[in-house]
Amino acid sequence: MTKAAGKPGTQGLFVSFEGIDGSGKSTQARRLHEGLLAEGRQAVLTREPGGSPGAEEIRALVLQGDPDRWSAETELLLFTAARRDHLERLIRPALAEGKMVICDRFADSSRMYQGLSRGDLRDKVDALHQLMIGTEPDLTFLIDMDPAAGLARAKARATEEERFEDFGVALQERMRAGYLALAEEFPARFIVIDGNRPQDEVAAEIRARLEERCPA
Amino acid sequence: MTKAAGKPGTQGLFVSFEGIDGSGKSTQARRLHEGLLAEGRQAVLTREPGGSPGAEEIRALVLQGDPDRWSAETELLLFTAARRDHLERLIRPALAEGKMVICDRFADSSRMYQGLSRGDLRDKVDALHQLMIGTEPDLTFLIDMDPAAGLARAKARATEEERFEDFGVALQERMRAGYLALAEEFPARFIVIDGNRPQDEVAAEIRARLEERCPA
Repeated sequence: MTKAAGKPGTQGLFVSFEGIDGSGKSTQARRLHEGLLAEGRQAVLTREPGGSPGAEEIRALVLQGDPDRWSAETELLLFTAARRDHLERLIRPALAEGKMVICDRFADSSRMYQGLSRGDLRDKVDALHQLMIGTEPDLTFLIDMDPAAGLARAKARATEEERFEDFGVALQERMRAGYLALAEEFPARFIVIDGNRPQDEVAAEIRARLEERCPA
Repeated sequence: MTKAAGKPGTQGLFVSFEGIDGSGKSTQARRLHEGLLAEGRQAVLTREPGGSPGAEEIRALVLQGDPDRWSAETELLLFTAARRDHLERLIRPALAEGKMVICDRFADSSRMYQGLSRGDLRDKVDALHQLMIGTEPDLTFLIDMDPAAGLARAKARATEEERFEDFGVALQERMRAGYLALAEEFPARFIVIDGNRPQDEVAAEIRARLEERCPA
């Protein structure tokens, strides 16, 4: 993928946001999207799991009902099916039109969650990704956040679907460590942003760091 | 897996049925199951896609609504998720209890259908199977059937879900050739049965061939 975005005829930029629950990644993804639109740039905001009609159906299947009815492997296959649909129906077409795609979570979330729930699953996550997905974001913003503060924020707005947040601060700490390890594993595309600051400050840094990598 | 079935403390036998639409495989799977139960043997009858509560939910997601809303790859991932659930929740536990498991379709159906819909998918089907499923039946009965006769039979009892039967006799011929090729590829577990005969005769041959491989 080239680094030019919003220019018809060139491939758009694929940007993902990752971070622990309550890190503010969804807010920051939305703010980046709004900012780019305000500048007249072509950008699409989406999220995982879900993001395309078929993927949203799979999301509903996984996240509604008793979460324990799926094993980690079955859940991984379902999320990969949703990701494949999302990629084919929304992400790749938008990139092909030269649009920037801003995605709230992508494959790194599977590396984190499934890898975390069972350590031996990380190899399967990677093999499955290579076999059925292949695409990585050009750029991944990791919103790094104090685990306790993130948890408090996430709990304040918890919905039925947000079952991953039920495990407390110890899990948040492991997730944070897992994300930071991913950032070290993929230094070329990860940009770690300190999320323990006012929203505006975080948003401004993200916009500046994007500009460095991808001038308008 | 050992070849002893129905004996507590030993691993049960995993038997699958495959064949083109209208070949009579579901009827024969049911008859074999009933026959074994009548003899006092422990046997479980199941089917794919589906077979466990979670897998049935995935089956409903794939087979209801517009079938073209999934790509072949997404559908393959969904069916593999269903198979993983079925294997974990029903097949493996029953085999571990020494029961015979009789399954109407298993992974060979994916090799056939997904491989047929797009020739280049067969490698992906195999790689995905090896990564996420691993298990093969001990024995696979392929009910071989005249494609036109099978199609006529399938059409006579077609339901909303049986969308694979919409493509006519040319597809049935390709499916038959594909199944016969699979039987050649896996000669150790495939037994090809001539399905162009009265039901009772077919059932008796299946029972006899099973006995050869797995004496009670």
